[in-house]
Amino acid sequence: MLETVNVGIVGLGTVGTGVARLLVEHSDRLARRAGCRLALRHVVVRNLDKPRDVTLPSSVTMSADIESLIDNADVQVVIQLMGGLDPARSYMLRLLESGKDVVTANKALLAEHGAEMFARARELGRSIAFEASVAGGVPVIAGIGQCLAANEIKSLRGILNGTSNFIIGEMEQGADYGEAVAAAQRLGFAEADPTMDVDGSDAAQKLAILAHLAFGAKVQWSQIPRVGIDSLQVEDMRFARELGYRVKLLAVARRATGGVDLHVSPTLVKHTSPLADVREAFNAISVVGDAVGRVFFHGQGAGQMPTASAVTSDLIDTAVGRSQLTFQTLDLWSDRSHQIDVRERSLASSRFYLRFMIEDHPGVLALIAGSLGHAGVSISSVIQHEPDTAGAAVPLVIMTHTAREGAMVDALAQIEQLDSVHDNTVRMRVLD
Amino acid sequence: MLETVNVGIVGLGTVGTGVARLLVEHSDRLARRAGCRLALRHVVVRNLDKPRDVTLPSSVTMSADIESLIDNADVQVVIQLMGGLDPARSYMLRLLESGKDVVTANKALLAEHGAEMFARARELGRSIAFEASVAGGVPVIAGIGQCLAANEIKSLRGILNGTSNFIIGEMEQGADYGEAVAAAQRLGFAEADPTMDVDGSDAAQKLAILAHLAFGAKVQWSQIPRVGIDSLQVEDMRFARELGYRVKLLAVARRATGGVDLHVSPTLVKHTSPLADVREAFNAISVVGDAVGRVFFHGQGAGQMPTASAVTSDLIDTAVGRSQLTFQTLDLWSDRSHQIDVRERSLASSRFYLRFMIEDHPGVLALIAGSLGHAGVSISSVIQHEPDTAGAAVPLVIMTHTAREGAMVDALAQIEQLDSVHDNTVRMRVLD
Repeated sequence: MLETVNVGIVGLGTVGTGVARLLVEHSDRLARRAGCRLALRHVVVRNLDKPRDVTLPSSVTMSADIESLIDNADVQVVIQLMGGLDPARSYMLRLLESGKDVVTANKALLAEHGAEMFARARELGRSIAFEASVAGGVPVIAGIGQCLAANEIKSLRGILNGTSNFIIGEMEQGADYGEAVAAAQRLGFAEADPTMDVDGSDAAQKLAILAHLAFGAKVQWSQIPRVGIDSLQVEDMRFARELGYRVKLLAVARRATGGVDLHVSPTLVKHTSPLADVREAFNAISVVGDAVGRVFFHGQGAGQMPTASAVTSDLIDTAVGRSQLTFQTLDLWSDRSHQIDVRERSLASSRFYLRFMIEDHPGVLALIAGSLGHAGVSISSVIQHEPDTAGAAVPLVIMTHTAREGAMVDALAQIEQLDSVHDNTVRMRVLD
Repeated sequence: MLETVNVGIVGLGTVGTGVARLLVEHSDRLARRAGCRLALRHVVVRNLDKPRDVTLPSSVTMSADIESLIDNADVQVVIQLMGGLDPARSYMLRLLESGKDVVTANKALLAEHGAEMFARARELGRSIAFEASVAGGVPVIAGIGQCLAANEIKSLRGILNGTSNFIIGEMEQGADYGEAVAAAQRLGFAEADPTMDVDGSDAAQKLAILAHLAFGAKVQWSQIPRVGIDSLQVEDMRFARELGYRVKLLAVARRATGGVDLHVSPTLVKHTSPLADVREAFNAISVVGDAVGRVFFHGQGAGQMPTASAVTSDLIDTAVGRSQLTFQTLDLWSDRSHQIDVRERSLASSRFYLRFMIEDHPGVLALIAGSLGHAGVSISSVIQHEPDTAGAAVPLVIMTHTAREGAMVDALAQIEQLDSVHDNTVRMRVLD
């Protein structure tokens, strides 16, 4: 006779419904994997009358009042799927305080209040499992925190926002930005207000979680330099392709002298790189460890069942007791961790893609090349096509060798002072 | 003050040396990740006089006698890196019986004697961690056994033998098979006797371990149908490329009606598939779960530090106590598991690549197509080039739609009876 672990769920939206379905429809399978029965006992929803895509047995208490769950001493693990910061933050604390282990997919909450949540859980001897908070069904949290635990992580590069990746894909097929966003919304890949996805905030929140996990980086997600895809132009994607690259919204963290460099930005990725091949709303992450070398993970970063897979695997980990052990040993957001600083961003170095709009006068290329050279930025390749109309402004595309971001910013400021150069220069990183 | 877990290593070859270096040179890092100090205390080697690439502190007992380690009651975890079946099998049992948890990379031992090893360890309340036994540094064991635990695994497809993948790559560059093997040996990717790698046995052993883990499949590795790359011909790789495919040595497991289909064989993979892009001696695995969809893992499947990374992460898992929990809940090789049978191989279906060598007489294609059609095998595409010399035998390449292996075998037997068809038909699977 197997023991039973009683489970509660806060939030029966898309993911919550998926988790409930796994618990109800595949209870034997989960019992085999957990070595105990996982019994869904208590579900908290906002609206009790709303029809649901899952049939819950009568043994499940449905309630619109989270207090009833906090007070339900029978429930040992709560799957907390309420989004946003408030009241999710205070509910999470009270669930922990009531003696429950928590599984969550709320990346915003962890990115914003991770330090507080994790400290409190540790204090209380409770655990927080959060595989689903980054990259949905792709096991990057366990991958970095556990499977690569013998390594010092050198760098990680991820496509962590499926919405942006889908939109970029549509733009590659010829859609303009607005059409691509509309298509993403129509297909359920983007919310009605897609701001957090397309401006890089969502990816920055996930990167902050990964940077804490992989580097013990002292970072607030809002301090991560980020550029979204909302200013991405089809023209630059065409030039990138001409140069043998594709543009991807990358979240990058790299250990460097004196700290870690972090940023989220549209980045040129060589077309032969596995990251270049990540299509539609998929996620991928490439991690380099000093022992293991490069490991690449790819899969569905969002969606009902992929996210439910991560949540439910976390639930099994918690029922088995692994999450608690992992949580107590992980240095995440902890004072005792060997934290490293985020470097001043001007120190970060990269190759760059530059597109200037120039008046097609003799000598302009020489002036631009001179300014770059003066700033210590050396040029790797150049594209300048003939203008369609004589005298019209033309794009001048330059790929640089590795340069410090600070040097690049200085050089661009100087170049944009030139009469023949417009002041809307496009600058994107190029992945080595 | 952290607790200390005392560690022993059996075998200080390439991987053992890598593990010892991590333990000695990065002890602070490992202590942070494990929440305890991992102290290397005892190393067993065959030859005490052999120079080593690692400097062990004087606190480490070096011995040529494994009895001294079995009897060393201070050692709690042993990293068992002795290869082969005997005496590795009896040593492993005695280490478990002496109360030690074991971490191993010995896939041959697990594939052959897994049932015995795992049953004995369970009986004794001990654990065996074996991430390094499949795909080196790529975390597929934890990936399937833990991270995807909420899923019913539908299929898995892996490039699990780096040596074969390297040799195939050399052949794509124009080397013949013998030259490619020689290059692999020169660069350390192949042993002096590469038989187990090139005949598919190594991949079949790894597939057996994965099939136990993912499906609870009742399988002996030696019963897995396997074709190696030792009979692969450059000509077929060229035809594959002409058709938009690359040839890879794939290990495949697929849940089907009435059981699971398993095989290892050179397989045509569409050039756009991530598996087609796995280069050199890298490993990759693509797993499909019913909830998560497809997840893809890629990285270094062999080599000193990638394998040491997996072994040492397993050691951390064991020191933390996670391995023990995982081991007791995993159904691996267990009577209580919901085991499924391996299906009769003639039932497995696939698309096929066929290359006939035919006398260029009128009507041969019609006869071959007729025989295939009669067996219920339908044709998807055909290549027949003009012969260089009139009257010479010419290759006729046919790609089929999905057909049962049994039907295909029957059809080929019939076709090879034709006067105009030589009896050296090449048949390879084509990945859907």
